[in-house]
Amino acid sequence: MGRWEPDARERLVRAALDLFSEQGYDNTTVVEIAERAGLTKSTFFRHFPDKREVLFVGQDTLCRLLADGIATAPSSATPLEAVAAALDAAAVAFPPGRRDFGPRREAVIASNSELQERDALKRAGFATAMTDALQKRGVPDPTATIAAELGVLAVNRAYARWADPASQQNFADIARQTLHELRAATATLD
Amino acid sequence: MGRWEPDARERLVRAALDLFSEQGYDNTTVVEIAERAGLTKSTFFRHFPDKREVLFVGQDTLCRLLADGIATAPSSATPLEAVAAALDAAAVAFPPGRRDFGPRREAVIASNSELQERDALKRAGFATAMTDALQKRGVPDPTATIAAELGVLAVNRAYARWADPASQQNFADIARQTLHELRAATATLD
Repeated sequence: MGRWEPDARERLVRAALDLFSEQGYDNTTVVEIAERAGLTKSTFFRHFPDKREVLFVGQDTLCRLLADGIATAPSSATPLEAVAAALDAAAVAFPPGRRDFGPRREAVIASNSELQERDALKRAGFATAMTDALQKRGVPDPTATIAAELGVLAVNRAYARWADPASQQNFADIARQTLHELRAATATLD
Repeated sequence: MGRWEPDARERLVRAALDLFSEQGYDNTTVVEIAERAGLTKSTFFRHFPDKREVLFVGQDTLCRLLADGIATAPSSATPLEAVAAALDAAAVAFPPGRRDFGPRREAVIASNSELQERDALKRAGFATAMTDALQKRGVPDPTATIAAELGVLAVNRAYARWADPASQQNFADIARQTLHELRAATATLD
């Protein structure tokens, strides 16, 4: 990455979200995104393979953070404690300055069925990655699958709460609280 | 639907799966599918909007069966009993004669990233439909969401077991047993 573009990635994401909102996803080109960000097309391609991936690279990072968080949780951690560690690890992907990204990203995705389909596959990947990481810790199935699904629900719900402009809490606190609520609700199934 | 094509839909699905396996999804046309099934192109289009939907209409039916099963469960049913009723209702989508459809369908989908993305969105729709149906019964959130997610896991896992050629059990029995195992595993999260 160029040494003169310390925040190039963030600028490109902002420029892309602005353009997608203003003129539509289909009508926006990589050249326009780079121009709006004050960067070159080749800088764009050092960060993203195409314009679609501007909307999805964050999910790849999140998926990796969740899986790593489980892998590096203390060996004494229960399945749900390992999931809580994953949520803590994921919090770095949600700094306060990016609180507006989510709702804007979702609006773009909601406008295009192919983007919705891709988003669904990426989300399904979270559960798979977390299940695999739990199984590597020796958590048997289906416990690993259920813990992972609760983790995904916690991420999705915590994300929506955190993205709310009225929210003041940080992601890690919201996510832990959400996971706790989900765990408590498993006692009300029957 | 034509009165002389009582099993046209099933024949079209079989023909499509055969052709997709033999020559690839991308290389297969609607005309070829209709010919292989001994039917006309216009018969094809009375059953499916395009060749892609041959792979997905079953999921729409399944989604409707699951939601209806919850809606029509006895009013005394707990959230998980309503989900069990949904699995019972879904069983009609899995007659013994279609045991081979699933693995063949999955092989086609695995070969194409766009099909994988569409499949993921359809699967995500199951959870949404079941959650909505539970909420309409007055089940509060997040209980409704968790019960629905367990239902989706039960459907997916039961389906894989049922599709195993060695399996002799019917879908409803497998699905109930799977849901019971998943419920039991929620006690092993911490």
